[in-house]
Amino acid sequence: MNKICIIGVGLIGGSFALGLKNTQKIKIVGFGRHEAHLQEAQKLGAIDTYSLDIVTALSGVDLVLIATPVNSFKNIFEMIKPHINEQTIISDVGSTKGSVIATAKEVFGAMPENFVPAHPIAGKEQSGVDAADGALFNNKLVILTPTENANTRSVTQVRALWEALGAKVEIMDDKTHDDLLAMTSHLPHMLAFSLMDYLTGNGKNVLDYAAGGFKDFSRIASSDASMWRDICFNNSSDIIKHIKGFQGSLDKIVDFIEEGKTQEIEQLFIDAKMARDNWLKDK
Amino acid sequence: MNKICIIGVGLIGGSFALGLKNTQKIKIVGFGRHEAHLQEAQKLGAIDTYSLDIVTALSGVDLVLIATPVNSFKNIFEMIKPHINEQTIISDVGSTKGSVIATAKEVFGAMPENFVPAHPIAGKEQSGVDAADGALFNNKLVILTPTENANTRSVTQVRALWEALGAKVEIMDDKTHDDLLAMTSHLPHMLAFSLMDYLTGNGKNVLDYAAGGFKDFSRIASSDASMWRDICFNNSSDIIKHIKGFQGSLDKIVDFIEEGKTQEIEQLFIDAKMARDNWLKDK
Repeated sequence: MNKICIIGVGLIGGSFALGLKNTQKIKIVGFGRHEAHLQEAQKLGAIDTYSLDIVTALSGVDLVLIATPVNSFKNIFEMIKPHINEQTIISDVGSTKGSVIATAKEVFGAMPENFVPAHPIAGKEQSGVDAADGALFNNKLVILTPTENANTRSVTQVRALWEALGAKVEIMDDKTHDDLLAMTSHLPHMLAFSLMDYLTGNGKNVLDYAAGGFKDFSRIASSDASMWRDICFNNSSDIIKHIKGFQGSLDKIVDFIEEGKTQEIEQLFIDAKMARDNWLKDK
Repeated sequence: MNKICIIGVGLIGGSFALGLKNTQKIKIVGFGRHEAHLQEAQKLGAIDTYSLDIVTALSGVDLVLIATPVNSFKNIFEMIKPHINEQTIISDVGSTKGSVIATAKEVFGAMPENFVPAHPIAGKEQSGVDAADGALFNNKLVILTPTENANTRSVTQVRALWEALGAKVEIMDDKTHDDLLAMTSHLPHMLAFSLMDYLTGNGKNVLDYAAGGFKDFSRIASSDASMWRDICFNNSSDIIKHIKGFQGSLDKIVDFIEEGKTQEIEQLFIDAKMARDNWLKDK
């Protein structure tokens, strides 16, 4: 692989680029709407060059990585479609995968064989290329969700790029990905947003009585609102399914309390603590 | 005030003692069941002396502070009752207040006028006197919930001790306290325990796909199970009320997603982020 175009050189696109510049001899071209951001990315050494013109940006590239918000993908697919050829590998870093594949099928007519959807399970609270870090994906999981018709060469090459950044790559179908992420990421975010909504609805000074533990618990409620709005609507059925499933777990705690089941509730808390402590050991 | 007895010299009792030793000329006697813990507390300078005998421990004290788990209070009240006089101030650091007052009324016949229930809104993940810190309550909130018959002198003296440790003291009734803490502390803990319960119930490898944000969000699920079992049953009606109220907030998100209300959901997330960011400014 000689040349890559990154569309959207922010935190994730910029970290991917920086990591590759540190380890590989690949020319990286940035594309975006804001020249100042691209200039900054170039100054930071993430990209070799940039263009505001998509034809120039895609010229001669082996791979195009789309690292913009998922809701922009339809426009981007339409924009790149006339300027890529059958050899160009397409990948993305969107946090929902079923919706990306559906949009690709809509724009390209069918899922391109060389499109390898990806989702790095890594991030930061900050955004923008200033926060980019070439080591962001080191020892982190990256999930690829190629469709059945995917070209093996494309999958292998995308996998190799992430592995060059130190990532552990796992391949699964998009439905499994979206279901898993609804549980481990989307549901906790809904709980955190919802808790702030509930507490602020109960009088504005309730939060004055929140202590240290609340700071960590509520951190993800400070996440970007428009990004999470898009995730909600790009993975709506899984999110709704798991909110309702979670409410069943909450109902169980209410039942235990109402029925005076002290042993059952203590066991639930012991198991929860053990699951969390065991999970933490691997982190 | 010349002499204080602390029953249960762990994280909270030990931090209270260390803070006082740093700022006040008060003799502090430790009482507990485990001599090794009391020896450690003495070695750390938290207490001047200790006794395993309650009569000796309470001899000549102006105040007794109960810093053991709330479910031990009935036994402790019964144990100290014969050995204190009308001048002895009683206080505690239990995290539920209605149940403490109810237990005191049960054992003493009526709420003692010199009993000033307290709850410092501060803590650590660790427990035990080894984790004690004389600065733990500096700039932290301490809530006092004296009953209507409380002796003003006792309230003033308990307040002054906490203020000597740098705490901000607020007085409210026990019902208000328990309702507020159910929202800001008990509810988030139930959500964290419940989330671990839900995710582990969905296949044991779901957690493999959890990322960095999950670590902070789930931290409080690593809290002590028996302590939280007791909190559940000592503040059951407020906890159930707020779990159900919170489920209403979750239902609202489900409705917004199902009805395609993108603007409403984004506004909810914006407001949540703003509330959390504003709260954080004061921390």
